[in-house]
Amino acid sequence: MSDRPNTPLLDLVTRPADLKQFSDAQLTQLAGELRSETVSAVSETGGHLGAGLGVVELTVALHAVFDTPRDKVIWDVGHQCYPHKILTERRDRIRTLRQEGGLSGFTKRSESPYDPFGAAHSSTSISAALGFAVARDLGGVTPEGLGDAIAVIGDGSMSAGMAFEAMNNAGHLKKRLIVILNDNEMSIAPPVGALSSYLSRLYAEEPFQEFKAAAKGAVSLLPEPFREGAKRAKEMLKGMAVGGTLFEELGFSYLGPIDGHDMDQLMPVLRTVKARATGPILIHVLTKKGKGYAPAEAARDKGHATAKFDVLTGKQKKAPSNAPSYTSVFGNALVSQAAKDDKVVAVTAAMPDGTGLNLFAERYPSRCFDVGIAEQHGVTFAAALAAGGMKPFCTMYSTFLQRGYDQVVHDVAIQRLPVRFAIDRAGLVGADGATHAGSFDIAYMANLPGMVVMAAADEAELVHMVATAVAHDDGPIAFRYPRGEGVGVDLPEQGDVLEIGKGRMIQTGARVALLSFGTRLAEVQKAAEALSARGITPTIADARFAKPLDRDMILQLAAEHEALITIEEGAVGGFGSHVAQLLADEGVFDDGLKYRSMVLPDIFIDQASPAAMYEVAGMSAEQIEAKVLDVLGVASIGEKRA
Amino acid sequence: MSDRPNTPLLDLVTRPADLKQFSDAQLTQLAGELRSETVSAVSETGGHLGAGLGVVELTVALHAVFDTPRDKVIWDVGHQCYPHKILTERRDRIRTLRQEGGLSGFTKRSESPYDPFGAAHSSTSISAALGFAVARDLGGVTPEGLGDAIAVIGDGSMSAGMAFEAMNNAGHLKKRLIVILNDNEMSIAPPVGALSSYLSRLYAEEPFQEFKAAAKGAVSLLPEPFREGAKRAKEMLKGMAVGGTLFEELGFSYLGPIDGHDMDQLMPVLRTVKARATGPILIHVLTKKGKGYAPAEAARDKGHATAKFDVLTGKQKKAPSNAPSYTSVFGNALVSQAAKDDKVVAVTAAMPDGTGLNLFAERYPSRCFDVGIAEQHGVTFAAALAAGGMKPFCTMYSTFLQRGYDQVVHDVAIQRLPVRFAIDRAGLVGADGATHAGSFDIAYMANLPGMVVMAAADEAELVHMVATAVAHDDGPIAFRYPRGEGVGVDLPEQGDVLEIGKGRMIQTGARVALLSFGTRLAEVQKAAEALSARGITPTIADARFAKPLDRDMILQLAAEHEALITIEEGAVGGFGSHVAQLLADEGVFDDGLKYRSMVLPDIFIDQASPAAMYEVAGMSAEQIEAKVLDVLGVASIGEKRA
Repeated sequence: MSDRPNTPLLDLVTRPADLKQFSDAQLTQLAGELRSETVSAVSETGGHLGAGLGVVELTVALHAVFDTPRDKVIWDVGHQCYPHKILTERRDRIRTLRQEGGLSGFTKRSESPYDPFGAAHSSTSISAALGFAVARDLGGVTPEGLGDAIAVIGDGSMSAGMAFEAMNNAGHLKKRLIVILNDNEMSIAPPVGALSSYLSRLYAEEPFQEFKAAAKGAVSLLPEPFREGAKRAKEMLKGMAVGGTLFEELGFSYLGPIDGHDMDQLMPVLRTVKARATGPILIHVLTKKGKGYAPAEAARDKGHATAKFDVLTGKQKKAPSNAPSYTSVFGNALVSQAAKDDKVVAVTAAMPDGTGLNLFAERYPSRCFDVGIAEQHGVTFAAALAAGGMKPFCTMYSTFLQRGYDQVVHDVAIQRLPVRFAIDRAGLVGADGATHAGSFDIAYMANLPGMVVMAAADEAELVHMVATAVAHDDGPIAFRYPRGEGVGVDLPEQGDVLEIGKGRMIQTGARVALLSFGTRLAEVQKAAEALSARGITPTIADARFAKPLDRDMILQLAAEHEALITIEEGAVGGFGSHVAQLLADEGVFDDGLKYRSMVLPDIFIDQASPAAMYEVAGMSAEQIEAKVLDVLGVASIGEKRA
Repeated sequence: MSDRPNTPLLDLVTRPADLKQFSDAQLTQLAGELRSETVSAVSETGGHLGAGLGVVELTVALHAVFDTPRDKVIWDVGHQCYPHKILTERRDRIRTLRQEGGLSGFTKRSESPYDPFGAAHSSTSISAALGFAVARDLGGVTPEGLGDAIAVIGDGSMSAGMAFEAMNNAGHLKKRLIVILNDNEMSIAPPVGALSSYLSRLYAEEPFQEFKAAAKGAVSLLPEPFREGAKRAKEMLKGMAVGGTLFEELGFSYLGPIDGHDMDQLMPVLRTVKARATGPILIHVLTKKGKGYAPAEAARDKGHATAKFDVLTGKQKKAPSNAPSYTSVFGNALVSQAAKDDKVVAVTAAMPDGTGLNLFAERYPSRCFDVGIAEQHGVTFAAALAAGGMKPFCTMYSTFLQRGYDQVVHDVAIQRLPVRFAIDRAGLVGADGATHAGSFDIAYMANLPGMVVMAAADEAELVHMVATAVAHDDGPIAFRYPRGEGVGVDLPEQGDVLEIGKGRMIQTGARVALLSFGTRLAEVQKAAEALSARGITPTIADARFAKPLDRDMILQLAAEHEALITIEEGAVGGFGSHVAQLLADEGVFDDGLKYRSMVLPDIFIDQASPAAMYEVAGMSAEQIEAKVLDVLGVASIGEKRA
């Protein structure tokens, strides 16, 4: 296209080995081209922009100094990997990022040997790098060989307990291992926590203490071609080792902080580390999220995630919305409840905007707790808030709540504490793909004794469920809702407190009952319309509760219909399994019932639009219609069309 | 009883308020009596001994200085709480510890208002204390009031990521909060990790730096009766604040280290902290696990957990074993496999003895990785070992694997990496009660795409499953087995590699098929014998796999029997739910099948013998027999007996 950036050096690069031909000065120019190419690509696809722009120079330097894919560079979270993908044989597909059939928006093993360990959730990279380092030293093999292990982790990700566990273990094992702390003071949300303050103090101090011995040693080890850079490194190393005590106490050597946008600092330091490192070493690199693209640098979130946009102006091209998002409906409903009840508080784990709690935090800052990327702590903290007489809403994405599962079991469910779990991003989520799908929460929550589990069928239902959760003080309660827009129903002024364990009838029909749990209800209703046109008018019910089940309603549906079909946006083991258990226990199957349970299929579904992903899952209106026809033994859609 | 210790002061104490009558010298005597009473009680019940003995003085000091239950003392893990229970209205029941119907071996909210937040899994106490502190400052209420929040956490527990997350959040929120680091260099297993080395360095340094200002301030704030103690505190505070940098960097004030067995140090420090603390403060207390009871002090594990024993000699009264434990069978089988394949490695999270990996570690120390209390890291570390060409066995208790659930999903299953999950303590576990039950793993593992899930029916099957796991290199695989002794079958010299997704027929009968997944098979066989005596000979099958299911076998069982009953040692959502999904999908229910799924009931079952707990769960041989008779419409056992 005519408006593509001019990238003469980048055009010479297909894979990292091609970088070896360039001088350091050329690599600096190349980094500039890579930045322009990244901006250009994301302007067409949308996606995570700021994080990638912050590591352009680091990406070039790592691939120029190390020998990937033999050396394993592991990008924590992975949403900063677009420049990495451009340099690693994927430039030709970079404009398919996050699209159906295109490149993943994260690192992904199945996509490239240059992605040795995929990600999307945070704080896994040090554990992964340590695993590679240990495997290397034990004679482990990979098709590409097994050399250095390098984790690149942001300061936000570093605050998660998992990263600490990995540092603690790495400091103990003393293997050669490189951790690059990419410190941009900004993960998804503004930084919280004591570690963040600590890092700020580290680089606030003037970094001019002596570090001569190490620098001298480094230079003598370097091969000839690097001598010039090495001299520079020596100068710079003098300025290092100002602090880093915390990391040193954990057994790491500490280097930094250095300017992550200055190739003249990055290259010699990485070369020195490559030549000299023996045990675990942490390199503290300062970067700016969104660096080098003015609209991103100016944005409050530094261009964290963006729709398609105009490169010149930075203006995003968002599709007009037809209905408010579930997330914002939740946020507003919680604010409304909090206004009436000063015991309502909220906890999230670095997802204030993503969960709509930003609305709550603006109004009630002292009652909103962003604990950082720390789901384990967040859940137990919420449990104790409940024990202390508060009404905590523990608000997390379904996929991240997995991080706090033991705490849900051990601290909440066993103690029967009234924590309210607001589970956002339930079901398939679109462009973020399989790693962000909320597929398992129905199963892993509904088999916990004493847990109440609800799913909202639409945004008005969500408002009712928020009210129900506030009122439910006899144990834990959870409600789930999807990413994206609601269906456009009118929102109630105030939510009603629902009766626990009671579903609702949507329409009464004959022969087949469709029992929906969650937002597939809209597709069920579409399917029912099509079926009605064929003379089959299904009964439709919204279960509302996976636990406790509405036994009376379900047994009545079973008794009065030839077939009963459940549908839910979750994997097997959840709502449908609880219904089947009830029907079996009650002997309903003894005399025959055409029972089917439509659940997410037994595959991880790659990114696409949510609608396309549900098509893969076999849960579109047309597929529901086909299922009904098949179960009833009526001619199928295909036959009708033929 | 005649051999009970003489405890004149302790006899005056029913609740902590009774401690206020004593002088510090008397409290020292009382601590001695409390130690004797603890030893005496555990000699009758068995249980965790060493941890409690290590905190006898700390327990007395905390209850003497603070106002429990208004002030919340939260014991991390909770297995050190026996002295605490004796002082808090439960001395009369202390000899029922861990028995059916008796006191829990851990803290438990439902047991006493002096247990404000129960535990059993580690590293939750700081999160919990922070929750209480925040609730207090927001006007939260509890029936007992809401004052100080005090977490008592061991050095092993402190190494878990969750504790770091909580410290990080507490340092940020700056609430008044007291964390007591009970540093005994020994959690369940010898300490591992860099944090442990760090703590050793802290107290290896001579603690004689100045801390005058704080000490002076402390004294002036103290009320008159404490002046003598305060002078002592002043002397001692001089010796504090030697290091603690790591905690200080996280926003905590640091006091210590102090001798946790010296009431003359504990009392004035706690009084000073109570009088002066404003923000978060960490008190570093050095204790000895097993302190004051020679047999415990001499034991390798410092008397961590013990059977009933003779107080004078310390000799344990263990019941003779009839068969090797599943744990040891696993350990030996893994050693045997490792001898043939140098890629076999093992990872555990502070459970080397409990999982039988001690056997592996002895033989292959460089291939065995105890990552500390760090399940999140452990799972991802194992995933990367697999990516690096090794064959890792990730060996954890079912209940603790919950801590690494997201990592199982995100790092193992989505990447289809061949991690072998050896899941010990599956099902109900006996004296450790509900918090340690392995109830949910079948459900939370079997709904992950690509995961293979097995359960061993006996110890020979376990040997085969270890061999099968070694051989399975095309994705992750898990196998579960219970706590306790096997059934006494002959063990094979070498395990056979089982065909993935194939069950085995045990006996062929008629009318009803019993399909077992796991070690209920023995009870199923007993039930079948009783049924045969009544003229009903059931078919019995061992599913071996919950995923992939043996479709052919299950469909055939369904086709050839009037009734099909599954049984598993897990909650709903697991094996039975997958079978029901299959039967529904295949239309087997359309024409009628007496299908039942026997799963753990929807309650948390309190401690008792495993057999008694399975009786509560309705899964004894007699209950299985009754279920069959009921399903077939035959006169029940009760009727037969009448």
